[in-house]
Amino acid sequence: MNTTGHLFKLTTFGESHGTTIGGVIDGCLSQLKLDFDFIEHELQRRKTAQSPTASQRKESDTIEWLSGLLDGITLGTPIAFMVRNEDCKPEDYEALKDVYRPSHADFTYEQKYGIRDWRGGGRASARTTLPIVVAGAIAKQILKAQGIQVFAEVTSMGDAEQARKEGDTVGGIVECCIKGVSAGWGEPMFGKFSAELAHAMFSLPAVKGFEIGDGFAMAKMKGSEANDTFINIKGKITTSTNHSGGIQGGISNGNDIVFRVAFKPIPSITQPQQTVNRAGECCEIAIGGRHDVCALPRALVLVEAMAAMVTLDEMMLANTR
Amino acid sequence: MNTTGHLFKLTTFGESHGTTIGGVIDGCLSQLKLDFDFIEHELQRRKTAQSPTASQRKESDTIEWLSGLLDGITLGTPIAFMVRNEDCKPEDYEALKDVYRPSHADFTYEQKYGIRDWRGGGRASARTTLPIVVAGAIAKQILKAQGIQVFAEVTSMGDAEQARKEGDTVGGIVECCIKGVSAGWGEPMFGKFSAELAHAMFSLPAVKGFEIGDGFAMAKMKGSEANDTFINIKGKITTSTNHSGGIQGGISNGNDIVFRVAFKPIPSITQPQQTVNRAGECCEIAIGGRHDVCALPRALVLVEAMAAMVTLDEMMLANTR
Amino acid sequence: MNTTGHLFKLTTFGESHGTTIGGVIDGCLSQLKLDFDFIEHELQRRKTAQSPTASQRKESDTIEWLSGLLDGITLGTPIAFMVRNEDCKPEDYEALKDVYRPSHADFTYEQKYGIRDWRGGGRASARTTLPIVVAGAIAKQILKAQGIQVFAEVTSMGDAEQARKEGDTVGGIVECCIKGVSAGWGEPMFGKFSAELAHAMFSLPAVKGFEIGDGFAMAKMKGSEANDTFINIKGKITTSTNHSGGIQGGISNGNDIVFRVAFKPIPSITQPQQTVNRAGECCEIAIGGRHDVCALPRALVLVEAMAAMVTLDEMMLANTR
Amino acid sequence: MNTTGHLFKLTTFGESHGTTIGGVIDGCLSQLKLDFDFIEHELQRRKTAQSPTASQRKESDTIEWLSGLLDGITLGTPIAFMVRNEDCKPEDYEALKDVYRPSHADFTYEQKYGIRDWRGGGRASARTTLPIVVAGAIAKQILKAQGIQVFAEVTSMGDAEQARKEGDTVGGIVECCIKGVSAGWGEPMFGKFSAELAHAMFSLPAVKGFEIGDGFAMAKMKGSEANDTFINIKGKITTSTNHSGGIQGGISNGNDIVFRVAFKPIPSITQPQQTVNRAGECCEIAIGGRHDVCALPRALVLVEAMAAMVTLDEMMLANTR
Repeated sequence: MNTTGHLFKLTTFGESHGTTIGGVIDGCLSQLKLDFDFIEHELQRRKTAQSPTASQRKESDTIEWLSGLLDGITLGTPIAFMVRNEDCKPEDYEALKDVYRPSHADFTYEQKYGIRDWRGGGRASARTTLPIVVAGAIAKQILKAQGIQVFAEVTSMGDAEQARKEGDTVGGIVECCIKGVSAGWGEPMFGKFSAELAHAMFSLPAVKGFEIGDGFAMAKMKGSEANDTFINIKGKITTSTNHSGGIQGGISNGNDIVFRVAFKPIPSITQPQQTVNRAGECCEIAIGGRHDVCALPRALVLVEAMAAMVTLDEMMLANTR
Repeated sequence: MNTTGHLFKLTTFGESHGTTIGGVIDGCLSQLKLDFDFIEHELQRRKTAQSPTASQRKESDTIEWLSGLLDGITLGTPIAFMVRNEDCKPEDYEALKDVYRPSHADFTYEQKYGIRDWRGGGRASARTTLPIVVAGAIAKQILKAQGIQVFAEVTSMGDAEQARKEGDTVGGIVECCIKGVSAGWGEPMFGKFSAELAHAMFSLPAVKGFEIGDGFAMAKMKGSEANDTFINIKGKITTSTNHSGGIQGGISNGNDIVFRVAFKPIPSITQPQQTVNRAGECCEIAIGGRHDVCALPRALVLVEAMAAMVTLDEMMLANTR
Repeated sequence: MNTTGHLFKLTTFGESHGTTIGGVIDGCLSQLKLDFDFIEHELQRRKTAQSPTASQRKESDTIEWLSGLLDGITLGTPIAFMVRNEDCKPEDYEALKDVYRPSHADFTYEQKYGIRDWRGGGRASARTTLPIVVAGAIAKQILKAQGIQVFAEVTSMGDAEQARKEGDTVGGIVECCIKGVSAGWGEPMFGKFSAELAHAMFSLPAVKGFEIGDGFAMAKMKGSEANDTFINIKGKITTSTNHSGGIQGGISNGNDIVFRVAFKPIPSITQPQQTVNRAGECCEIAIGGRHDVCALPRALVLVEAMAAMVTLDEMMLANTR
Repeated sequence: MNTTGHLFKLTTFGESHGTTIGGVIDGCLSQLKLDFDFIEHELQRRKTAQSPTASQRKESDTIEWLSGLLDGITLGTPIAFMVRNEDCKPEDYEALKDVYRPSHADFTYEQKYGIRDWRGGGRASARTTLPIVVAGAIAKQILKAQGIQVFAEVTSMGDAEQARKEGDTVGGIVECCIKGVSAGWGEPMFGKFSAELAHAMFSLPAVKGFEIGDGFAMAKMKGSEANDTFINIKGKITTSTNHSGGIQGGISNGNDIVFRVAFKPIPSITQPQQTVNRAGECCEIAIGGRHDVCALPRALVLVEAMAAMVTLDEMMLANTR
């Protein structure tokens, strides 16, 4: 369950304060000259310590490419890559070793596995999203050559600077648009393009909501308001409005695919909180470590990356016929 | 892509006005005495012609069991079943054969397949959800024996009787609660319980939004408001609030799993609408046929069924260890 | 595990003496005019009561098409089909209800499921291969349009008429050749064309061996004898010999793909045999029912069908790039 | 297609003369103290330069563990690992860059991908089996705790020392036995234990044949000779013979699972051979590099490793019920 994708597949590995974080991409087309500058650019967008509201953990995040390339050209074989975790401070977390941080995955991981890597959230850390950015950048490069582009922006966010002062954190909403998708991609029933996007977004940390097109607002509309009327523009059939967000019956209609993702506030607040420890005893914690006040700025590239991987997968599935 | 589930799998088949609708369940435990009355009860909840706002299509929906059973007991082999489509009126749709109904899947199916079954929406019809109800009922029966129950209710809906008069339709929101799930189910990274639920719900027709716990509202909260504090109640570690909706880091925490699903209004309105036909010519249509004014009442059992299948799947995955 | 294929998928259902046997094909290309005569022709090849050495069970095996077609043209949606089991004589098996027939799946099914359909072998019966023939026929039709053909023949078989007199059965070997496959199909590592074929053949009842090219004989060769020398024939690179059987490194090289499958003798012999019953008591049985003396003549179409499905799947996978 | 397994999954990466070879194990149980000495022992069995008939390439093959462990204990998260390729001599292969070595995967890879890593066979090299040994060792450790063991031995092999003198190579047969498997593992129809083993073995380089139990010899037997009579030994139902090789109807019967694998001779012979180059011109090659005369001694641990992974997977699947 650490693999995503049907034909363009990413398997990720690594814990926040383990030795490495990495991934294996299987199914990438061959003879592609990887755009390493673009990958680096995308990694910079994800990186910490870039804004006053971001964590001060400093990682060079230098990708080491392990396989699948010959002189920077893809061979069609698995592309493995990793980065070293350098700026680890497990001692920051020593005090939290036996304590369940509220709304973190400490408790649930321990229930599931009987053991957890307590150092910085282990596998549940947002740091483990790094391989997603790498794979997403490669997917974007392939899509771009087909005229497809993916853009995300923050459309709503709490007052981060105020929250920082209060030792608090904020959430927000990211909107994403995929431009240039052909009509007819996606699979009916249990492989809908929209369902694949929903699954992909809920694979990102802190996501609590997903909607496509007008989404929840459509629950309050009438059919006559929500329907997208077909029109013929210079011989191309399209719709005059895009309440559907580019997908009808699970299949793309050629319009922009538009969706929104709700992120909860990061649960690592420095304010004191009540919780319990492994022994079941009540205790108070104030979470140290180095954490963002808001995940949103860094989440943009993650949303785009997952969307790009889903879109590429749909393109490849459409090609099988 | 007409199969859902990792270990408890459902494959469905059938078109709205074809001869049959059916499914194949693979991975159901053996030696289970199927509760046919309960399956019938669940089918009744989905059935049309039950309320003034529902379609007047009348189908007996009598299940014919094709395989996998010996004297009503499951053999562990695939359980195939079907119902005959009896009250078909393809002539209702003859006029729509070459016209793309707004916000239906007519256009996208044709773009994808180069052909479509125009009779009543074909594979994209809500009628194709019938097998989901059957599989969901069986999943519920298995879950119930483990103390797990799934309930959905309509929490928001437009004014259906008014809409009917206006030849219009309405949408709404369904909330679902899964009670009794153990802590520790679900898989990190790309197999999160929440992601599986999101995917399952977006597999249902007309779904445009999904949120878990406080969902989109969490985007406006601060961490100090959104966090669920752990408490110890009589030796059992739980949380004092449930903003997370029972899932943290993609894994169940033992609390109720709570989520909401936004349904758009049914696109089949009787008001005249502008659209284009296959030749790309503008035309006006007024959709006849027999359609619901609101999908919500019938969607409840669908939401529950998909949720039950996902939960059973997670239970089986948890058992592998 | 009742589904086979990555992109062209078949799910089967049914027990030997249940009401029906059937299947669901998912992923078949749309706009294909099914060749029903050819499907019928292939079913005749599998049918019982065709030769003096075959079982006398008489089934009309009339396919009922349940979905996925409009006027005989594929819609791209799941193609479900079934046949009724008509000539059932469960009473033939009543005496075997609590007895484990030697080298049948009675004992293993019961160990796995705690229950078994004792009527004619239930799910383990060779009758359950019928849907494979249907799906294989459709795969062949698609392949033929691409210039690909699949042929199997019996290359070795025991003396069936003598065995019949002795209340015994015989096995044999089937050789299959796939002509017209392009070079470059198949996936390295865990998706080798040869591995997919091996898996497919071992999915058939009574198969105990599989070899490709010169197979086991290559274990006794030297490299200088086993290697296939490349040559250039009129601008096309091929090999002067075909010891490899058309596959090198798991990927097709454009030559004929040639493999052999070993079938054990059918375990249903009429000679008296020692065995034990469910209570663990020793007992003697003489198997009645209606059984073939040799599975080989009917196995040809099964071997071809599985080979065709695998080849089509590889073709579709090759198309994704 | 570089991933194998349903629940205990291995993804591998790496090319022969790239920087690294490695793998990611997903689905390994948590809280397992890895037996690193045993893993090292297994790697030694695979290693080159151990016998006069083996290649003289010298690699330390020191495993670097990248994730999934805390103090040597499994976390339940993906276990990634790699070794560095140290003793690379791409210059040995420079002359072969544009030449297709007979019965190697040079030509087929190039047909598939349009590019190939010509350095030592790239992804098709036997060196890429190293991660299989690591994953197999872990699977064996888990199985051993359940009383299950896997042993392989060479039962037939050409005269290696003579072949070496002649610049030739030899093939052979490996027999493998899995002891201690419970009755009732494996899935009917398309998930047969035997089919999974066949697929696994054909995933290894140079494999051209697979048979289970008496295999191809059963094609010449009569039913009365091939059938395994059930007997009751001290209350346990078993069979008096094991012609079936421990599997009936695709499901284990509790007996030893016994199968044989045919390996062709290694195609890298030092004798001069005729072939063609990328331009399609005839040419003669004498393959240098460092190659085994016979793969069999090193293949034992590979056969065992794949068998162990399949068996563990079947055990986990059996646990889901």
